[in-house]
Amino acid sequence: MASKVNVGLIGAGRIGRLHAEHLAFRIPQANLLAVSDIILEAAQKCAAEFGIPKAIQDHREIMEDPNIEAVVICSSTDTHAQMIEEAAAAGKHIFCEKPIDFDLGRIDRALAAVEEAGVKLQVGFNRRFDPDFRRVRELVAAGKIGEPHILRITSRDPAPPPIEYVKVSGGIFLDMTIHDFDMARYLIGSEVEEIYAVGGVMVDPAIGEAGDIDTAVITLCFENGVIGTIDNSRRAVYGYDQRVEVFGSGGMVAVSNKTPDSAVVSDAEGVHGPLPLYFFIERYVDSYIAEMEAFIECIQQDRMPPVTGIDGRIPVVMGYAARRSYEENRPVRLGEVA
Amino acid sequence: MASKVNVGLIGAGRIGRLHAEHLAFRIPQANLLAVSDIILEAAQKCAAEFGIPKAIQDHREIMEDPNIEAVVICSSTDTHAQMIEEAAAAGKHIFCEKPIDFDLGRIDRALAAVEEAGVKLQVGFNRRFDPDFRRVRELVAAGKIGEPHILRITSRDPAPPPIEYVKVSGGIFLDMTIHDFDMARYLIGSEVEEIYAVGGVMVDPAIGEAGDIDTAVITLCFENGVIGTIDNSRRAVYGYDQRVEVFGSGGMVAVSNKTPDSAVVSDAEGVHGPLPLYFFIERYVDSYIAEMEAFIECIQQDRMPPVTGIDGRIPVVMGYAARRSYEENRPVRLGEVA
Amino acid sequence: MASKVNVGLIGAGRIGRLHAEHLAFRIPQANLLAVSDIILEAAQKCAAEFGIPKAIQDHREIMEDPNIEAVVICSSTDTHAQMIEEAAAAGKHIFCEKPIDFDLGRIDRALAAVEEAGVKLQVGFNRRFDPDFRRVRELVAAGKIGEPHILRITSRDPAPPPIEYVKVSGGIFLDMTIHDFDMARYLIGSEVEEIYAVGGVMVDPAIGEAGDIDTAVITLCFENGVIGTIDNSRRAVYGYDQRVEVFGSGGMVAVSNKTPDSAVVSDAEGVHGPLPLYFFIERYVDSYIAEMEAFIECIQQDRMPPVTGIDGRIPVVMGYAARRSYEENRPVRLGEVA
Amino acid sequence: MASKVNVGLIGAGRIGRLHAEHLAFRIPQANLLAVSDIILEAAQKCAAEFGIPKAIQDHREIMEDPNIEAVVICSSTDTHAQMIEEAAAAGKHIFCEKPIDFDLGRIDRALAAVEEAGVKLQVGFNRRFDPDFRRVRELVAAGKIGEPHILRITSRDPAPPPIEYVKVSGGIFLDMTIHDFDMARYLIGSEVEEIYAVGGVMVDPAIGEAGDIDTAVITLCFENGVIGTIDNSRRAVYGYDQRVEVFGSGGMVAVSNKTPDSAVVSDAEGVHGPLPLYFFIERYVDSYIAEMEAFIECIQQDRMPPVTGIDGRIPVVMGYAARRSYEENRPVRLGEVA
Repeated sequence: MASKVNVGLIGAGRIGRLHAEHLAFRIPQANLLAVSDIILEAAQKCAAEFGIPKAIQDHREIMEDPNIEAVVICSSTDTHAQMIEEAAAAGKHIFCEKPIDFDLGRIDRALAAVEEAGVKLQVGFNRRFDPDFRRVRELVAAGKIGEPHILRITSRDPAPPPIEYVKVSGGIFLDMTIHDFDMARYLIGSEVEEIYAVGGVMVDPAIGEAGDIDTAVITLCFENGVIGTIDNSRRAVYGYDQRVEVFGSGGMVAVSNKTPDSAVVSDAEGVHGPLPLYFFIERYVDSYIAEMEAFIECIQQDRMPPVTGIDGRIPVVMGYAARRSYEENRPVRLGEVA
Repeated sequence: MASKVNVGLIGAGRIGRLHAEHLAFRIPQANLLAVSDIILEAAQKCAAEFGIPKAIQDHREIMEDPNIEAVVICSSTDTHAQMIEEAAAAGKHIFCEKPIDFDLGRIDRALAAVEEAGVKLQVGFNRRFDPDFRRVRELVAAGKIGEPHILRITSRDPAPPPIEYVKVSGGIFLDMTIHDFDMARYLIGSEVEEIYAVGGVMVDPAIGEAGDIDTAVITLCFENGVIGTIDNSRRAVYGYDQRVEVFGSGGMVAVSNKTPDSAVVSDAEGVHGPLPLYFFIERYVDSYIAEMEAFIECIQQDRMPPVTGIDGRIPVVMGYAARRSYEENRPVRLGEVA
Repeated sequence: MASKVNVGLIGAGRIGRLHAEHLAFRIPQANLLAVSDIILEAAQKCAAEFGIPKAIQDHREIMEDPNIEAVVICSSTDTHAQMIEEAAAAGKHIFCEKPIDFDLGRIDRALAAVEEAGVKLQVGFNRRFDPDFRRVRELVAAGKIGEPHILRITSRDPAPPPIEYVKVSGGIFLDMTIHDFDMARYLIGSEVEEIYAVGGVMVDPAIGEAGDIDTAVITLCFENGVIGTIDNSRRAVYGYDQRVEVFGSGGMVAVSNKTPDSAVVSDAEGVHGPLPLYFFIERYVDSYIAEMEAFIECIQQDRMPPVTGIDGRIPVVMGYAARRSYEENRPVRLGEVA
Repeated sequence: MASKVNVGLIGAGRIGRLHAEHLAFRIPQANLLAVSDIILEAAQKCAAEFGIPKAIQDHREIMEDPNIEAVVICSSTDTHAQMIEEAAAAGKHIFCEKPIDFDLGRIDRALAAVEEAGVKLQVGFNRRFDPDFRRVRELVAAGKIGEPHILRITSRDPAPPPIEYVKVSGGIFLDMTIHDFDMARYLIGSEVEEIYAVGGVMVDPAIGEAGDIDTAVITLCFENGVIGTIDNSRRAVYGYDQRVEVFGSGGMVAVSNKTPDSAVVSDAEGVHGPLPLYFFIERYVDSYIAEMEAFIECIQQDRMPPVTGIDGRIPVVMGYAARRSYEENRPVRLGEVA
């Protein structure tokens, strides 16, 4: 039996605390030894809550700790690439939240550092680990719908982020659609060649004033001929809408939203079912656990991570292609922006 | 090709007019030649609306018309048995609305008259012709669920009938459950041996004052070992609730309610689907057409009707057994009341 | 009460016979007086089956018959525009199957003739009369989902037409998507400004050899800001797939496929529901009746038809825009082709 | 903030290990200090796996440990009553797996000991904590379906237990239906007065030879007038079937089975959904965690447990009433057997 993996966590914000809880309570094969945050109190609070032995301000203590084999990077996006380079230099395996960076040059330097150090890097595209989407991928890969022809992804948030966040988010394609780009590649198992994106400001004019859009429809043309569409909205009043459908020569597979319960009430007004789970924390909790289990397991078994550095890079390229397509109102090939 | 069947219709009330419309417009193999009603104006109005050549007050003109091969009896329940005897004596094939009668002796005399005359008699248990229930029967008969073990029938009306009707209805078991008793026999293809019924007045105290109950749960033990339950209510506020489920050694088959459309609205309050079709006229329109087509066809092809006289008698026996079970609070064997 | 409308039917092919049956048996307000077909036997057979008094070869007898107020044009597409002009000249109201023509000039002449004659023209976009889609339109128009933002149309045939038909069909966008273009305009209640179409040959190489494609995804940008997508395939092995979804500021409405029954079988392998109704004849039977009722009614009540000549023209323009977009791989504004 | 609760676990079999895992990893407010099992190795293995400090053979060490405030009794059923008495005497709060005992006298002595000691006793009717059933109860209690009239419980196992277990199980009503009896009381919030049970051997003759039945339908008459039915089978080939429906004056609420994913595949054969989760471990995992959280919380907050000793007693009485009803083929009042 493989020995447990000693882990250090960098960044004790919302997503960091989520991973901390899973590493501490849900993944017996992990030992979470330390947590750092530039706000020391945040690290201390996280450590207290999840029984982590050490809470520090400077992440370099984690990088330098010889007992720590793997780091989980949950600091702010602009630090990801630097953290990856440091961790690689320190010989640590790396789990990094998405995106690696918005700058392709920085991404490439980080990936080169990982390559050179021979450490493992897994990028946090958690949705691949959702039981529903994984099942769709399995069915597609097993040929249960024949050759895939058409992919449909519906991905709508329950509410837009704060305008301050919107301003630094990189825009809807790099902030929100990026998950759907990864999902598209994952489900179809082929690369996208060309992207066409349209969109508008329909949810909140303030988003437009911040230079972004809040509603988008994206067409994807894959190398293997599949055509995909993604539709995004920053606000679905009925909650987090996350569905996919793959249609092929032998049939179709589709998954629906998850709900907190299955209670259906029939009354004089209609037949009423529950709303979808509100947002990603509720909807994707299982996938967050599963991605971290997979990370720990790939270290123990010395296997390639299920989501690699290149998997982290390509959706960023797709985001830039989508943005250019939207701006220039024409289909854009990925080669134009990569 | 068989020649068309000349039909006379007796009784131009709601159900009579329904059959008139179908015979006139929807069943090309039928010629509806005459309609009678003890209220002549009703017959005339029906004739005008559906293009029936002859409208009369006295049904005996239909019985005596040598051109008429078949009669459709939609007069009041207390006249059914007499009408059957007259029609049989006149050598006409007979479609009779359910029930034949509430008096088993009168039923037996009517059935004997049919037998002696060698005419066909079909009783109006239309629900057997509903596409959903027919599909369930086909699947059960084809062994798709293995040997059946458990039957569940949910049968709830959207609103109780007028109290004046309740008083002469024969009670819930003979008026409402009688359809479910027929459905139970049809779906399982075996006879019921014993019945246990409980119930109460939950919908409207006036129904209790009229000597009836409005809510009932009935347990059926079949000769072949299957156990069935029926639940009835005189008022489902969400509309006509008509579902069945058959469970067996190889699986389960279930059908759900029919709705006017499939539009599902998701809003901030929930996910809302359409109500079931309101009542039997809407819900069972296809089955009314199909039962009449089957009647015409069995005449043309000289085959046994799909719902026979004995199929009309047994549910009445079951109704009496259920009533006695309810009154004496004990399981009652059909042999005790037949 | 309005007097019945005397109708003549031109063309006794599959769709002609369908309308003949409805006019003869299902629409009491119509008198179907004559049917013509260039193959006289086809007209005669149709007349015999549906009790139409007169069967002729030359449609001009219908045009010249002073008793006939309205014609239903079901002849081959290349004759539609000419028939409309003749009927208009004869002062007859016109129901014409879609499309009016593939030549915009001929369409415009036909519409001008209608305009000049002051007769009514209804074009056969039957799907608007489907209870599900009508319900979606009602809910959208009533503001039940707020302001619409995103429209999704899934429209997949169960099997491609014969290759000989494909060759003269005008291509997938004018033959198949044309219905979806009409649906898009109907559901959103706004005009499309720009179209982007991608597609490929995935179902049958012979379709590609015939110069057409069999799979397409189309993006629609509406004047009111709504963004729509349509996906088409010539072959869904599970049957006719006809779904729509409209998403807006206040929620979402979606409709699902229609099935012959609701029987769900649970066995050791899974939970199995029925396939969708196979193709348009089964799926849209109610809509064909309803569109013809609406046509008869608009004559009786002297109202504007619910689908006008311009409603017949615009989807042809959209088809040309989609074709050009596909050929040139760029978004095309309707103004470029109209 | 309340201090954590120190817990000892008695019995390291399947259900004991389940609770151990939850107490160790999922319930931060609990400290699991010791585990005992008459097979020492079982206790040791459990301790090693879930990080429990102490593994012992003799449960009395747990009873005597002054640090332990609460015991979780998962030993064999015949020891439950004795364990409760010992724990009560030691002043420990008690969580006991169902049933307390099959002997009402022993149950009463155990409950009296609990009463006298003033400790808390929670009985392991976990299904009350299932999110679906809890939601149904909330909706019923909130009056969302008006006054309840009819309750339907479907409860079918995927496979029968080993025959050796059947022989000592107490029979289907005390072993399997007992959970449904508790569910019925919980959902309706009223006591059952009378029970009528029918059943048979349909799944496996060996069950009949062991003196039991494998299929049953039970009718429940509640004090508040509600009528309930339960249907049980020891083998549903499609998996664990656990559904309830409550119908009332204002509507109906129903919940459906849980599945591992929502992937629906449409192919040429049909539309195929996933099977229900296989059995109680998978289906009710959330409820096991929630019941234990509730137990810990009622200790911390000094509140009454959500499932009390009397809640543990009454379903046993109902089981005896059902058994007598089946044997004597008559409705049996609970007063006859209590």
